[in-house]
Amino acid sequence: MKSILSSDLSVINLGLVRFAEPLQDMGTPVAACQWQPPAEGNPEIGWKLAELVNHPKVEEANKIAFERYLASTPVLEGIATAADVIPAMQGKKLILHSGPPIAWADMCGPQKGAVCGAAVLEGWAATTEEAATLVEKGEIAIDSCNHHNAVGPMAGITSPSMPVWVVRDTVNGNTTFSNMNEGLGKVLRFGANSDEVLHRLRWMRDVLAPVLKATLAHMEPLELKPLIAQAMHMGDECHNRNVAATSLLFRKLVPVALRHGVASPKELDEAFAFIAGNDHFFLNLSMAACKAMLNAAAGVPGSSMVTVMARNGIKFGIQLSAFPGRWFQADAPYVEGLFFPGYSQADAARDLGDSAITETCGIGGFAMAAAPAIVQFVGGTSDDALNNTISMKQITLGINGNFTLPMLNFTGTPAGIDARLVADTGIRPVINTGIAHKDAGVGQIGAGVTWAPMPCFTAAIEALYEEVCK
Amino acid sequence: MKSILSSDLSVINLGLVRFAEPLQDMGTPVAACQWQPPAEGNPEIGWKLAELVNHPKVEEANKIAFERYLASTPVLEGIATAADVIPAMQGKKLILHSGPPIAWADMCGPQKGAVCGAAVLEGWAATTEEAATLVEKGEIAIDSCNHHNAVGPMAGITSPSMPVWVVRDTVNGNTTFSNMNEGLGKVLRFGANSDEVLHRLRWMRDVLAPVLKATLAHMEPLELKPLIAQAMHMGDECHNRNVAATSLLFRKLVPVALRHGVASPKELDEAFAFIAGNDHFFLNLSMAACKAMLNAAAGVPGSSMVTVMARNGIKFGIQLSAFPGRWFQADAPYVEGLFFPGYSQADAARDLGDSAITETCGIGGFAMAAAPAIVQFVGGTSDDALNNTISMKQITLGINGNFTLPMLNFTGTPAGIDARLVADTGIRPVINTGIAHKDAGVGQIGAGVTWAPMPCFTAAIEALYEEVCK
Repeated sequence: MKSILSSDLSVINLGLVRFAEPLQDMGTPVAACQWQPPAEGNPEIGWKLAELVNHPKVEEANKIAFERYLASTPVLEGIATAADVIPAMQGKKLILHSGPPIAWADMCGPQKGAVCGAAVLEGWAATTEEAATLVEKGEIAIDSCNHHNAVGPMAGITSPSMPVWVVRDTVNGNTTFSNMNEGLGKVLRFGANSDEVLHRLRWMRDVLAPVLKATLAHMEPLELKPLIAQAMHMGDECHNRNVAATSLLFRKLVPVALRHGVASPKELDEAFAFIAGNDHFFLNLSMAACKAMLNAAAGVPGSSMVTVMARNGIKFGIQLSAFPGRWFQADAPYVEGLFFPGYSQADAARDLGDSAITETCGIGGFAMAAAPAIVQFVGGTSDDALNNTISMKQITLGINGNFTLPMLNFTGTPAGIDARLVADTGIRPVINTGIAHKDAGVGQIGAGVTWAPMPCFTAAIEALYEEVCK
Repeated sequence: MKSILSSDLSVINLGLVRFAEPLQDMGTPVAACQWQPPAEGNPEIGWKLAELVNHPKVEEANKIAFERYLASTPVLEGIATAADVIPAMQGKKLILHSGPPIAWADMCGPQKGAVCGAAVLEGWAATTEEAATLVEKGEIAIDSCNHHNAVGPMAGITSPSMPVWVVRDTVNGNTTFSNMNEGLGKVLRFGANSDEVLHRLRWMRDVLAPVLKATLAHMEPLELKPLIAQAMHMGDECHNRNVAATSLLFRKLVPVALRHGVASPKELDEAFAFIAGNDHFFLNLSMAACKAMLNAAAGVPGSSMVTVMARNGIKFGIQLSAFPGRWFQADAPYVEGLFFPGYSQADAARDLGDSAITETCGIGGFAMAAAPAIVQFVGGTSDDALNNTISMKQITLGINGNFTLPMLNFTGTPAGIDARLVADTGIRPVINTGIAHKDAGVGQIGAGVTWAPMPCFTAAIEALYEEVCK
């Protein structure tokens, strides 16, 4: 009888690598297959998942949701004051924040810092300390951006007088909003709230936004999918790398502003110098476009397609198309990445911001194969960038042919996260993101990569089982 | 005795694939190794090449030439009128063209068309027919751009009143020039010479150039290597794809022009709308920068480093560092590529233009791995783009760490073509390029990829042998 360790033997190893090692040591060829039990080995979830996999109602619902997402056509409609387009803000002391809703007492440092800065900006408080007291007493209300068709990166703070991008989906008419990008470093969205930060925000409200608003008034509504697609052919993934999209937007705006003389030379100079100096300027517009595409997919009963991923620096929350407005939450993860000089992981807040709407939409980390140069900002190698995109194909409903990846022979980006596939494969959605200091008032300290936490998806699976199978 | 066709046998096949096929048909594993005899199997050149390979004088000379190329630091000094900076033009009826020098009678259609257009532009002739007669009679002189530290894409036509980019190498002080980019389609450099073409050239001289000149006067000389490097992280190879570099340049110029109010609103509007509408605008500046880096390497006795590759649509010419100003020529190849609707290979001129200075400098086709999206313009797949860069490593002296390739884990681009390695390996330098109609007056009909012809390199090897080994 031949030994089972004969060299004629070839082995496929599922899961744990250490099963393979003794065989490999004896010269037996072993092909490793990454695998882990569905639902992280939790049998309670596992059998519910088994019911949902290939369930005809879910399959049909996902087809509808994904097609609505693909058909969505977001255009840049213009710039507005937040209170003029977000009804809940009108005449109210309401500040919106990123991620799922959270009580003031539970908020992370940078988000608290940004809320207080916004309250001073609005003139509701003279100091950030006074602002904290007013929020604590409930005299200033806080709510999630996503409850108001809005998205904001990092702290995501949007207050009534702030200018917002207005994006409209021309296919179904839904409108989404995002605040405007301040640049990197000491900025409100990373929790900084000094005079310098508030001064910049006032200037953005009083100079930048009017210049852009007047410029956009002379343009046809700008189609955002082709702009994002072109930027993805220029090394952006339109989450943490927006240098190409910002440049392309700049090239579109400047000639119109000059042609129509929309502002004084000094205002034009200031506004366009600011945009030219901020490679991340397009991020917020990218996010509003993604929010519009995903709103189009929301609300299909039975659909397991993820339509929101958002973090408040304490909790990571997702929503499924089947349950618009319902959050499935878990602790927000920390971010693996590169830190600015003088900072380390010990200084970092947890994952923060609505910007994971880009990954939810199939760009950002999902389109990292378009943006190999981003690894200089978030860490890793260009192979990691390719592999992140490729692995996301295993948890998505399809590909988005509007956003093609040159390095993968122009295949579309993987899009439409299926919560069932995440729970089944154990592969979690990858997210490129910034890193804020954990304390209020400091700002950005780095950038990196993280992965959405599994309990969000298993909780969503349990809810979907209740809805579909009972 | 075992059959030699036993399955235990493994074969490495050198060169012709068909030797391997019978073995493969019988199930024998064959690894193919691309190989061909040195110097295309020409023994006369082969033994001269053998003397030159590893020759200490050539090795030492190449080291010096390559280091000078790496150290070169081209900056954009400003804009000038060609006759003011190219001494041979002062008060003369001289028109410069791309490629090696060529007699009027031998010129290709598009170059003739462009020469005649330039003569009318200069007011030396009322019609293109009259212009042709004057050139034929010698009343208007023609010469190679490269003889005057100038480079021009495609026909390369530069006449005395045209504005030129002025690039200076701050390390060794040499200055280079290039005309300005008119856009695609019906333009002088592709042989078109209609009123529309000349009208645009007059506007470039009278409006665009003064606006840019005045803007640059308010800026520090712009370092061009970092700008090219950044564009290469944004999907440009800075020969046939310049959308990122153009956008980055635009972002640098606009705020300065606005800050200093360098021209009337109408002129600013016209100038910046023109640049914003021309994704290829940076090409000519890229070429002048490459010319400066290669001029730095020229003139090292014994060096086999290629310092010029240029085509006039009839002949392809190269120069070695060892022999500045001396051309080694062969018939210009045709270009494999994608044609605009209504045109085909039958309509195409041969390879044309000084723009292969970019490949000579390690960018363009050599950096195609930075620009996978370019295959939509020039044909092929993203794998071809990667492989073109990788194969150029076999014929170059080193890598240029100033220009890194994200998709190849930020390795530098292969640079410093060694004529010995081209002759030895049979691997010819790859070139991304535009395709002009073969007749005067038509313009661009496509874009594609071509390879420098081997006889240029074998002729250069023979000359170098005479110089070094005798």
